[in-house]
Amino acid sequence: MMHNKLLVAVSIILNLLFTVHILYNNSTTWSPTWTDRAASEAEDAASVSCSGHGRAYVDGLGVLDGHKPPCECNNCYTGKDCSFFVPDCPVDADSGDPLFLEPFWIRNAEGSAVVESGWHRMSYSYHGYGLFVSAELERIIRKLHNVVGNAVTDNRFIIFGTGATQLLAASVHALSQTNSSSSSPSRLVTSVPYYNMNKDQAEFFNSADLKFEGDASAWKRSERNDNMTQVIEIVTSPNNPDGKLKRAVLDGPNVKYIHDYAYYWPYFSPITHPVDEDLSLFSLSKTTGHAGSRFDWALVKDKAVYEKMKTYIILSTMGVSKDTQLHALQLLKVVIGDGGDEIFSFGYGTLKKRWEILNKIFSMSTRFSLQTIKPQYCNYFKKVREFTPSYAWVKCERPEDKNCYEIFRAVKITGRNGNVFGSEERFVRLSLIRSQDDFDQLIAILKKFVSKEAVVVDSV
Amino acid sequence: MMHNKLLVAVSIILNLLFTVHILYNNSTTWSPTWTDRAASEAEDAASVSCSGHGRAYVDGLGVLDGHKPPCECNNCYTGKDCSFFVPDCPVDADSGDPLFLEPFWIRNAEGSAVVESGWHRMSYSYHGYGLFVSAELERIIRKLHNVVGNAVTDNRFIIFGTGATQLLAASVHALSQTNSSSSSPSRLVTSVPYYNMNKDQAEFFNSADLKFEGDASAWKRSERNDNMTQVIEIVTSPNNPDGKLKRAVLDGPNVKYIHDYAYYWPYFSPITHPVDEDLSLFSLSKTTGHAGSRFDWALVKDKAVYEKMKTYIILSTMGVSKDTQLHALQLLKVVIGDGGDEIFSFGYGTLKKRWEILNKIFSMSTRFSLQTIKPQYCNYFKKVREFTPSYAWVKCERPEDKNCYEIFRAVKITGRNGNVFGSEERFVRLSLIRSQDDFDQLIAILKKFVSKEAVVVDSV
Repeated sequence: MMHNKLLVAVSIILNLLFTVHILYNNSTTWSPTWTDRAASEAEDAASVSCSGHGRAYVDGLGVLDGHKPPCECNNCYTGKDCSFFVPDCPVDADSGDPLFLEPFWIRNAEGSAVVESGWHRMSYSYHGYGLFVSAELERIIRKLHNVVGNAVTDNRFIIFGTGATQLLAASVHALSQTNSSSSSPSRLVTSVPYYNMNKDQAEFFNSADLKFEGDASAWKRSERNDNMTQVIEIVTSPNNPDGKLKRAVLDGPNVKYIHDYAYYWPYFSPITHPVDEDLSLFSLSKTTGHAGSRFDWALVKDKAVYEKMKTYIILSTMGVSKDTQLHALQLLKVVIGDGGDEIFSFGYGTLKKRWEILNKIFSMSTRFSLQTIKPQYCNYFKKVREFTPSYAWVKCERPEDKNCYEIFRAVKITGRNGNVFGSEERFVRLSLIRSQDDFDQLIAILKKFVSKEAVVVDSV
Repeated sequence: MMHNKLLVAVSIILNLLFTVHILYNNSTTWSPTWTDRAASEAEDAASVSCSGHGRAYVDGLGVLDGHKPPCECNNCYTGKDCSFFVPDCPVDADSGDPLFLEPFWIRNAEGSAVVESGWHRMSYSYHGYGLFVSAELERIIRKLHNVVGNAVTDNRFIIFGTGATQLLAASVHALSQTNSSSSSPSRLVTSVPYYNMNKDQAEFFNSADLKFEGDASAWKRSERNDNMTQVIEIVTSPNNPDGKLKRAVLDGPNVKYIHDYAYYWPYFSPITHPVDEDLSLFSLSKTTGHAGSRFDWALVKDKAVYEKMKTYIILSTMGVSKDTQLHALQLLKVVIGDGGDEIFSFGYGTLKKRWEILNKIFSMSTRFSLQTIKPQYCNYFKKVREFTPSYAWVKCERPEDKNCYEIFRAVKITGRNGNVFGSEERFVRLSLIRSQDDFDQLIAILKKFVSKEAVVVDSV
């Protein structure tokens, strides 16, 4: 009897506890909110398995018809889940698509996600904070440079652009416009080998105020270098395509400089000192790997140049998308959360491994050579370290291999022709910062290609 | 005894049911996932009360320091929660910030939210779908034009730009470049009053291939109109600033046209027919109200022009931000979800009310007049309806009121001077598509201003 009563009592107490638990839980977790649908769509897309050789995105083909986002396969993979490797497939080593950092962002999914509301910053301007620039994003960019130690931001204006391409054009424009002393156009020069965009833009936009003149050293030696004509020199450091740290070639009161530091991050180069120039460019594409977001910034010393650049940005795109600025802010929060430790170690580690593999292969070749750069002390990693550039700048050494791009194309590797960079066709640029699949495919072909060379040499 | 046993049995069954319930519930709702933090941050920001006179955003000032996003108050409101009205505050009726649509997006919070992952489309291009354009976004834009009936999209290329400003420049560039028959620059003309950006861009970029010549009718009458010189005419319809439907002024084999249809949506104008021109421009800013996203598109008939425009976009910004394209896709999904019913009715309803109030006030004035446009049949709303333009194009009728902008500024209303549009200073443009607060403040001052006028007349 006593036993029975106890049983009833325990059972009733348990029931009460359960009831309280359920009521309490319901009151705190029962919250169907406006972010639910979007969150579940994002999680669904992220959970699509593409065999590690592709990715599904919420805005993938067919989603308007209610289909599940499909796998978009990496180069040389196919099938619904990207599980089939296409044999004899041409390797893409052309563009500098910075997908080597993608694994970092997948690993940091929670910290880097952003929910954007339908009414997020519909206005042209950031109300109360100045015109077209998110004040918090500007702050975090200054913090980032301080943490990495790659640029002085004190007494600098920061201006945002839609991709490095736009700010490059804005800079050139601003500096050619502040050339009031002369009615002849400013000359644009840079050192061979140079980033092809410099030339392409200048020629395409065909401004009456600007003329592209090519190599800076050639200009220095030329008789047209009269110390009067206004000259703008673009200094890309580390350089695209060869990864070397560069200095300006020209000097004089008639020369103005644009320093393109897109690659001056610990992934690619020792950070030897904080740069302190009049006009420096940086790009999110090579900072976090988000080329698709089209976001870059300039550090500008002179107020008049800054104002000219701002006018250019306003008249060409009225500032940078607020969607992009929101995304960039969240990404940079993750980057500086641990002082950059995780992302820079990951990115540098990845490129270091890639260069070791590459160097090993090319060390067996007499037909091809790679650029070599002496290691330097890196203030960020606090040690002497080698350069791990974004691109292999390959030279074809045999006299008969005049067009190096074509030599590689014949074995199904698409690089970028040396002549695009104002250099000889004897060079080809191979991109090393693409996805792991692209790199693995590149290495697989290179290995065979170079080992054949050894066989030929042996058999002679 | 029997009774007791029953009690125990019921209690135990209840316990079992509760246990099952909790286990089952835990297995389905216990899912801490990677979108949680971002979702909760977004909901927190959205729940900040700003007294209906401001808004808090996830990227607001101070969030990097861990502060709650602060209220950003509408013009003339201040205080931590925007609850204080600033007396005698100047009214902003200048820019065309399309915040009149913000209440629609707040109402449609769930449908319009987007979660963007940290690894969302990091690449420069949409893999497998062509270069810089989201295929789904292109599809939904074609659907939207079909649903609204404002443009023919068959046999048209669609190109995306970073704001209407960029595509306008790309169009002008492409058309001046396809002018191969002559070495003299193309002339750019448009009808007075015209959108100031047309002139500002042409003059600022100072291309060797283009010269701005102002009013199209003046050019037609001028002796320089030799039917040989290449001319590009920009036709803005409905027109900015006056909201009238416009047609091209010039004709001849030497004339090319850019049709700017940014305002050709049911909010502002009857949809009289689907436009079917060679090159038409549209903008997200005036379609969904998202000026901050900087997204617009062009419908282009001729492949050569399309290719030239594409080259321009690539060389100036390498396409449009993938973040923006994702956001735009989600917004347009909501718009066409019900065939546009809700958003166009809401937006048109809002502007209709605003115009009724405005007309009533100005009907009491002899000093000022408004533009008048005859109602027309609207294929979208299937009825004859009045025009409800974005801007009041106000004329100061008294001979002594030569500068209408200054007359309004004296009573603390900032509009835009008529001379900015190539017109007389006797006109001023007042924006009617801003937030309800901006409109209410405008009306409050206008009422007093115009009633004073009546008093003066009476007292004479």
